[in-house]
Amino acid sequence: MAFKYLSNIPLNEARSQFLETLKSNRLHSEIETIKTVDANHRIAAQAVYAHISAPHYNSCAMDGIALDASLTFGATDTLPITLRPDQFRWVNTGDPLPADCDCVVMVEDVIEADHGAIQLFAAAVPWQHIRQIGEDIAQGDMIIPSYTEVSPAIQGAMLAAGVLQVKVIKKPLVGVIPTGNELVSPQTDPQEGDIIEFNSTIIKGMLEDWGCDVFVYPIVRDEQALITAAVRKAATQCDFVLLNAGSSAGKKDYSVDAIAEIGEVILHGVAIRPGKPVVLGFAREAAKIIPLVGLPGYPVSAILVLEELVHPALNLILMKVDQEKPIAEAIVSRRLTSSLKYLEFIRARVGNVNGKMVAMPLNRGAGVVSSFVKADGIIEVPQNTEGFEAGEKVPVNLLRKMEDIDKTLVITGSHDPLIDELVDLMKIKWPDSQVVSSHVGSLGGLMALKRGESHLGGTHLLDEATGEYNKSYILRYFPNGGVKLISTVFRSQGLMVAKGNPLDIELVADLARVNYVNRQKGSGTRILFDYLLKQARLEPAQIKGYDREEITHTAVAAAVASGTADAGMGILAAAKIYDLGFVPLIWEQYDLLVAEKTFEHPEFKRLLEVMRSDAFAEKLEKLGGYQLNKPGEVIL
Amino acid sequence: MAFKYLSNIPLNEARSQFLETLKSNRLHSEIETIKTVDANHRIAAQAVYAHISAPHYNSCAMDGIALDASLTFGATDTLPITLRPDQFRWVNTGDPLPADCDCVVMVEDVIEADHGAIQLFAAAVPWQHIRQIGEDIAQGDMIIPSYTEVSPAIQGAMLAAGVLQVKVIKKPLVGVIPTGNELVSPQTDPQEGDIIEFNSTIIKGMLEDWGCDVFVYPIVRDEQALITAAVRKAATQCDFVLLNAGSSAGKKDYSVDAIAEIGEVILHGVAIRPGKPVVLGFAREAAKIIPLVGLPGYPVSAILVLEELVHPALNLILMKVDQEKPIAEAIVSRRLTSSLKYLEFIRARVGNVNGKMVAMPLNRGAGVVSSFVKADGIIEVPQNTEGFEAGEKVPVNLLRKMEDIDKTLVITGSHDPLIDELVDLMKIKWPDSQVVSSHVGSLGGLMALKRGESHLGGTHLLDEATGEYNKSYILRYFPNGGVKLISTVFRSQGLMVAKGNPLDIELVADLARVNYVNRQKGSGTRILFDYLLKQARLEPAQIKGYDREEITHTAVAAAVASGTADAGMGILAAAKIYDLGFVPLIWEQYDLLVAEKTFEHPEFKRLLEVMRSDAFAEKLEKLGGYQLNKPGEVIL
Repeated sequence: MAFKYLSNIPLNEARSQFLETLKSNRLHSEIETIKTVDANHRIAAQAVYAHISAPHYNSCAMDGIALDASLTFGATDTLPITLRPDQFRWVNTGDPLPADCDCVVMVEDVIEADHGAIQLFAAAVPWQHIRQIGEDIAQGDMIIPSYTEVSPAIQGAMLAAGVLQVKVIKKPLVGVIPTGNELVSPQTDPQEGDIIEFNSTIIKGMLEDWGCDVFVYPIVRDEQALITAAVRKAATQCDFVLLNAGSSAGKKDYSVDAIAEIGEVILHGVAIRPGKPVVLGFAREAAKIIPLVGLPGYPVSAILVLEELVHPALNLILMKVDQEKPIAEAIVSRRLTSSLKYLEFIRARVGNVNGKMVAMPLNRGAGVVSSFVKADGIIEVPQNTEGFEAGEKVPVNLLRKMEDIDKTLVITGSHDPLIDELVDLMKIKWPDSQVVSSHVGSLGGLMALKRGESHLGGTHLLDEATGEYNKSYILRYFPNGGVKLISTVFRSQGLMVAKGNPLDIELVADLARVNYVNRQKGSGTRILFDYLLKQARLEPAQIKGYDREEITHTAVAAAVASGTADAGMGILAAAKIYDLGFVPLIWEQYDLLVAEKTFEHPEFKRLLEVMRSDAFAEKLEKLGGYQLNKPGEVIL
Repeated sequence: MAFKYLSNIPLNEARSQFLETLKSNRLHSEIETIKTVDANHRIAAQAVYAHISAPHYNSCAMDGIALDASLTFGATDTLPITLRPDQFRWVNTGDPLPADCDCVVMVEDVIEADHGAIQLFAAAVPWQHIRQIGEDIAQGDMIIPSYTEVSPAIQGAMLAAGVLQVKVIKKPLVGVIPTGNELVSPQTDPQEGDIIEFNSTIIKGMLEDWGCDVFVYPIVRDEQALITAAVRKAATQCDFVLLNAGSSAGKKDYSVDAIAEIGEVILHGVAIRPGKPVVLGFAREAAKIIPLVGLPGYPVSAILVLEELVHPALNLILMKVDQEKPIAEAIVSRRLTSSLKYLEFIRARVGNVNGKMVAMPLNRGAGVVSSFVKADGIIEVPQNTEGFEAGEKVPVNLLRKMEDIDKTLVITGSHDPLIDELVDLMKIKWPDSQVVSSHVGSLGGLMALKRGESHLGGTHLLDEATGEYNKSYILRYFPNGGVKLISTVFRSQGLMVAKGNPLDIELVADLARVNYVNRQKGSGTRILFDYLLKQARLEPAQIKGYDREEITHTAVAAAVASGTADAGMGILAAAKIYDLGFVPLIWEQYDLLVAEKTFEHPEFKRLLEVMRSDAFAEKLEKLGGYQLNKPGEVIL
């Protein structure tokens, strides 16, 4: 097996190398003439000058009379002047100024007298209430300079100035070629091993938002000849070609060879994570340069490479300016280790907790596209940096508006679907509500609250000594108070097993003979499980899979549903979603632990309101396995 | 003539009255199901849950071998273990994890031995290099709550989770009805009195940007019955109807009556300027509420009413949140008077001059759509406020990004088309260049520089005593220095007259017998004209039109071209644009006056570079009437 060489060029260097190579090979924009009425958001290819003046005639700016101002000189409240019908003309707004008139008096100031005469009680000033020719735009004036993005107001100004067509930068057509034997179109019942091809939808959306036209080619199988042929064809049809995936250096990675065969590889491999295995190159078609990029297959990698390397190259063609990333400083909520070899991009939730900006890193997996759904920002850990310590101030590239982040209620703690449902009920009632939630387990939530990094969190911590939930933990971790416990629900915890429970798992003791899947340390469910193990006089080492950890009830249920585990502990709601068997073990108390200051937070007031609503009770009924427990009541 | 009553309700009150009335009459959104691939930027009508897990099977995350991790326990650098071919399986990234395997070892760490056996030099950890089922999204998880705007990443997450269709808020269809006898479609040769109908293009662009579909009806003539019929029809076809114009209380203003006849008028007249004569109402169609709005006819008024009143109502239907206006504090460059009766919106250029944010008010005319092209921000002068003094700090609603404003070079001074051409040449060479220019005349520019409100300005101030340009003014106004004079051009000033000069205007003295149009006080051209008058022994009172002021050369040329003036002073370039006769009087010196600190400004360095370029010389040649005068050289 031959390995291709993957370089590790720093991002900034790679970006300049790519852009400079394209520029020195005369990458250029094309220009087209379109109707001004269709030009919103397009980029003007040259300066636009007014063909006619706006207004194009001297125009009455009021309903009233037009006249020669000198006729009114000396008129006052006490000495009005009277004008004969032949000395003025009635006009409406927009009428041309009649000949020999140089002002308009508005109708409210005109007193009609007999025989069509009128009286005026004030003198008029020449050119009053007249929109003079060219007042807005004079013929020959430059309306906009080159490379201005056309807005609706600019369209209006151009039309007013008789500019009915405008030369704009042609939208580059970007060809996207999905490759891979296992790729299948999005579907609801894929076979094991099928990889759902959703990257092209993400890529298309991003490129369209940036001002491109996009054509997605059919999926190409992993064969060198087929892929090379597809790229060759796309290079004749498009202005820019993206191959996805096969950009790495494995035996089935053909991007670099395809690009090398058709054109020129500028570089292969950039020192970023995710996103390292990228291929940057170009082809020549007649006098034209077609950039060719091999994107990595994982969606998070592909998105980052698009933003960091493809977008600047497209902006060269679009004559647009790269936008600076909005950066804020935040305290990172936990230790982040990072390789010295790479610039690492870590998606994070960002929240403002009592004036303290906190960034909570999300799952770093390159395949975890949901991290981009949840992310409020991206932490960049520079190359040659080992990472950040918990509590360290780090720069975060914000993906949401700071004003929205400032308003956001931050929920950090134990995972339960009811948290998501509460957030949804708030959105339904107040579409402007802003809440984020992270799942870090009950203890993780408690610690986040202690560090002042969250407003509240779900918690279900069993005290083995007393059998009571949450209270003893709070007294231990918050000896000086500062938090309140809000009652919420009882929920049914038990063992999720295959449908029909074929392995007859009835007791915790039965787990010694099957494959188990566990929850992460610090989660209330893990603490409960450890307690139940002790009750059953079992050691963790006796449970196969004790070390296999998932961080949500649904992820555990998914493992059981897939057959890689025979049992896992979780709530009835999760078992129901996966149509699993469920062996109930205990009704446990699930509460919200809330910082005292949070009671002033407008979003928390909304949360309390929906907790007490009928809609919430109905949701829980539908989820199954819950009993309301005085929701919203302060119990400690 | 009967006058309709126009109320003067404060904006916030009017807005709540409008929105509350619509809500209490059950204004609601409609919902439609669309393909997920088409859902970018749409608003989810309900929470979206995962149909399947992503990944939907346990997936190898690396190329390499899959095996049971327990087989590798104890393997080290010095004590490798050897595995038979039946103890592992070769896998590629994305392959399903084979049965009885619980880890993947990457190919780089696998040493191939004889007979298909392999050696490993390190123990594997269970579940390493495996993307576990549901790692990204578990079946049943809420992907997004209700009313989330769909992004490309969200599309990807939904497709990964088997969500192929999504319920979204239907785009409201907004009907736009242009009304007016004088309205004509945009054209290059309108007749006097024709009003070019460009408002509907502005309205359409704004509404589409806000997420609406828009249908523009044909222009309707100013007749009550026709307008009422048009609104009635639109109300049956659309979800929202905008009438433009005829919203005031004049004899040809039919909007309020049409709305009253079909539905209900909520209010007529809001205490804002521009934008006062707005009609807010609604109609009922079956169980549906159709908001009906009469927009004022002037484009600036229409834009402001759309933003302040129509957008929030559309957001109710779109389930979107009104965005807060980004506000910055700036020093207002000149006195702004405003009526106590209105909240006034004044468009302004905004620039950062050595750390000082400056807002330079633009033409306040409601018909001046170009003010929206030039504006970087809007100053709101609150109702019950008389205005602001020059130098006062005022809040400005920014229309451009602060980071762009911070980079912008602010040119304030005498108007010459060469300034626009320099800006364009900069854009052509560096599309990211940021320059704004305002025309306030030479003296105005000098004062702005003195107050630290601009970086530089064009100037051509003649010292009558010495016949020299600019220098004596600088020594007088900047006795302590701090500015430099940059040589630029000589330009031909003269009298612009009708083509062929039918009135035989040859000397300044001839102006005593014709209609003149003047430039504003403080402009270099005005000072020059006053000097020439004195030379000709004429008094201003002897010149008819001496008090009629325009602020640019082209506006003066437009006045002459329209025949409302017989002569005006200006540069050859302006006369050429309007195909006028030109009587040259003098070659005058036009320089740039630059603050010393400006020499550090990156955009100024670019400006100097293009001033010295061949492209600039060619532009001047084409404009006509210029001689290069050591451009870019510091002469004082």
